[in-house]
Amino acid sequence: MALRARREARKLQALPAEVRRNILNAVADALLTRKDEIVQANQLDLANAAQDKVAGPLVKRLGLTDEKLATLVTGIRQLATLPDPLGNVKAKRELADGLELSLTTVPIGVLLIIFESRPDSLPQIASLALASSNGLLLKGGKEAYHSNTALHDVIGDAIEKGSEGLISKDIIGLVTSRGQVKDLLSLDDTIDLVIPRGSNALVSYIQENTKIPVLGHADGVCHVYIDASASEEAACRITVDAKTDYPSACNAMETLLLHADTVENGVALNVLQALRSAGVKCLGGPKAMKAGLSDVATQKTKHEYGDLTCLVEIVDSIDEAIDWIHENGSGHTEAIVCAPDSPAGEIFLQKVDAACVFCNTSTRFADGYRLGLGAEVGISTGRIHARGPVGVEGLLTTKWQLRSLSGESYLATDFAGADPKRTFTHKNLL
Amino acid sequence: MALRARREARKLQALPAEVRRNILNAVADALLTRKDEIVQANQLDLANAAQDKVAGPLVKRLGLTDEKLATLVTGIRQLATLPDPLGNVKAKRELADGLELSLTTVPIGVLLIIFESRPDSLPQIASLALASSNGLLLKGGKEAYHSNTALHDVIGDAIEKGSEGLISKDIIGLVTSRGQVKDLLSLDDTIDLVIPRGSNALVSYIQENTKIPVLGHADGVCHVYIDASASEEAACRITVDAKTDYPSACNAMETLLLHADTVENGVALNVLQALRSAGVKCLGGPKAMKAGLSDVATQKTKHEYGDLTCLVEIVDSIDEAIDWIHENGSGHTEAIVCAPDSPAGEIFLQKVDAACVFCNTSTRFADGYRLGLGAEVGISTGRIHARGPVGVEGLLTTKWQLRSLSGESYLATDFAGADPKRTFTHKNLL
Repeated sequence: MALRARREARKLQALPAEVRRNILNAVADALLTRKDEIVQANQLDLANAAQDKVAGPLVKRLGLTDEKLATLVTGIRQLATLPDPLGNVKAKRELADGLELSLTTVPIGVLLIIFESRPDSLPQIASLALASSNGLLLKGGKEAYHSNTALHDVIGDAIEKGSEGLISKDIIGLVTSRGQVKDLLSLDDTIDLVIPRGSNALVSYIQENTKIPVLGHADGVCHVYIDASASEEAACRITVDAKTDYPSACNAMETLLLHADTVENGVALNVLQALRSAGVKCLGGPKAMKAGLSDVATQKTKHEYGDLTCLVEIVDSIDEAIDWIHENGSGHTEAIVCAPDSPAGEIFLQKVDAACVFCNTSTRFADGYRLGLGAEVGISTGRIHARGPVGVEGLLTTKWQLRSLSGESYLATDFAGADPKRTFTHKNLL
Repeated sequence: MALRARREARKLQALPAEVRRNILNAVADALLTRKDEIVQANQLDLANAAQDKVAGPLVKRLGLTDEKLATLVTGIRQLATLPDPLGNVKAKRELADGLELSLTTVPIGVLLIIFESRPDSLPQIASLALASSNGLLLKGGKEAYHSNTALHDVIGDAIEKGSEGLISKDIIGLVTSRGQVKDLLSLDDTIDLVIPRGSNALVSYIQENTKIPVLGHADGVCHVYIDASASEEAACRITVDAKTDYPSACNAMETLLLHADTVENGVALNVLQALRSAGVKCLGGPKAMKAGLSDVATQKTKHEYGDLTCLVEIVDSIDEAIDWIHENGSGHTEAIVCAPDSPAGEIFLQKVDAACVFCNTSTRFADGYRLGLGAEVGISTGRIHARGPVGVEGLLTTKWQLRSLSGESYLATDFAGADPKRTFTHKNLL
């Protein structure tokens, strides 16, 4: 399956951008024309979930509504209008007279995406892979088995139709049994990147069981730091949004760091009141407990609650806040609230070492759609390749192409010795 | 040691580019002023190598001559004149009125470099890490113990002097005992990237024993394909250069693919004669044996000889050559020899999936210095992050910075609902 996906992906890459565009539009069309088939399959999954007494939020994620499908179709059509991501020249250099080097964008190869529950991930990821000419292996959750199978079938047919038979549906493989995951993780000579989208436990399991590079995030321990200069209104609004807009999201706030001055000037108390009014339970670190800011103490300084709970602690300076974040954060998203004219904002933006660092903005903006990347394959807290929300750019790599423009042969020995036949010019052309 | 390196690296990153430049120049100065100390330590290693009856080529690699030191110093001074690689804005976007996103370059964090024998790697890698504000842990070979210790000491003092005490020598740690490597490989929460520079066995061992991303190449199985349109002169010259210029290098040719027409028109015979005259043993694949091109058959189609031996095989078309390369190559460097006006060159450059793809040029150009990257930390055959020869660019990652320019607070909920308070503009500013 992986070899077939790679073969078809290499074929697609060699074809003009128009073919990829036609495929994307065919996928969008098919999601609408074959909507009934998809929704019917989804009903089966929902019925099984009801029988298995699956929890409400999970059922909500599992459901494929007309609205969700319409959003997907809009996104895929948008992707089809963007400039082709392949073959972009990132660097161009004359190495010597008549010898030209280019660094161009190419697909990574074959991606393995492992995702849980949400079947709407499937068309989103598939369209990003098709737009970038990557082969794809998809492993969905068993609770979405029927939905995923129907979506895979609809998309596969659309690929063959949109490419007028040039590309086979084998470019996207669907893996349905859990046992196959372990085998897939051993294919480090055929699969180039694994992207797990799911629980921390899933991501950790994958990182520990494969030599293939993994793109993703295990933890999302995000902080909001309230600077001494912050206004009460900004501090309350941003903190409540960051914690309560979607508490189980990886970009939700887990820890609130309050500058000691905000305890003096009353901002801290107002922020805590706003959080509590919004249903948030505020656990206290040692200093917060001493200052009487919370009723419940906790020792855990690095924890992803994923619900309406957070840790609150006091820091004496912005540097102490930054040190705390470096020690306890997961390098995902960190935000400061400060006065617009305070230097604290730029200090925080420069010094904090994380994928996303925000000033006077909720942590919830760390998301591919909000940052304007279009669709998102995931968020990476790794430091190599792609970092933060990852769109189609993160599914590309580069290739060095070196051309003799003069028609002559270029040898390493031509450039060697005391009186070389040729010399390097190393002139940047771009 | 890793934590200290990270702490110092974060400090260096926050300082102006001038400090990094001063440090690099101080390192270059110190390598000259303390030359005697370094050469003396190197003599000790050479004496031990002689006692242990180490082979000639290894001794040559171990030796630190005045000439090698002078080349290093020139390289480091060049690096100091280049534009600062940090803080470059790769993308800038208005997300909404008054809300601006930037994607800027930042250091990766802490690098672990494991290298064998050549002590001149140490100052080269150290200067690339300092230029990009990365913390560094270095593990050299035991045969270069005294040389590495002296170099580490000289560079450490220069860092403190060049930064006027702002940065401690702890930014670069030297690991001297072999037992520590296993412990280092388990520090996936502190070390961000491992770069092994050495044998295939070393690279494979590291890939199998760590969750930390590894940048490097295990195999260098490079091909030269002689197209039907190739001239005899170009075919002979490029092939001999690619195989014999430095046979143990990873970018040397291991397999020669001959288009069937070149067997008819005599080019193939001349290429083989030129190789044999240069001392190369040509093993034959099944088709080559049948055509009488070799005396010794081999079944191994994917093998890195690393000496004056190569595999020769016949292909019936450029597509067959490309398929062969995809099946048996290691994705390192692949070259075509063809007539300057033949479409084969561009077909090969586009279709071959490898880090480096060359037309009418020896495979030996796959090297950081020749490609104009300045110094090189290694060559990557991985497909994510950096691919091919890797210079200072490969030691960078990015950070998303999001700023409220209006001074107002931006909340995710502002953008939600049927009649949102704010709307996304997603306007690219760069």
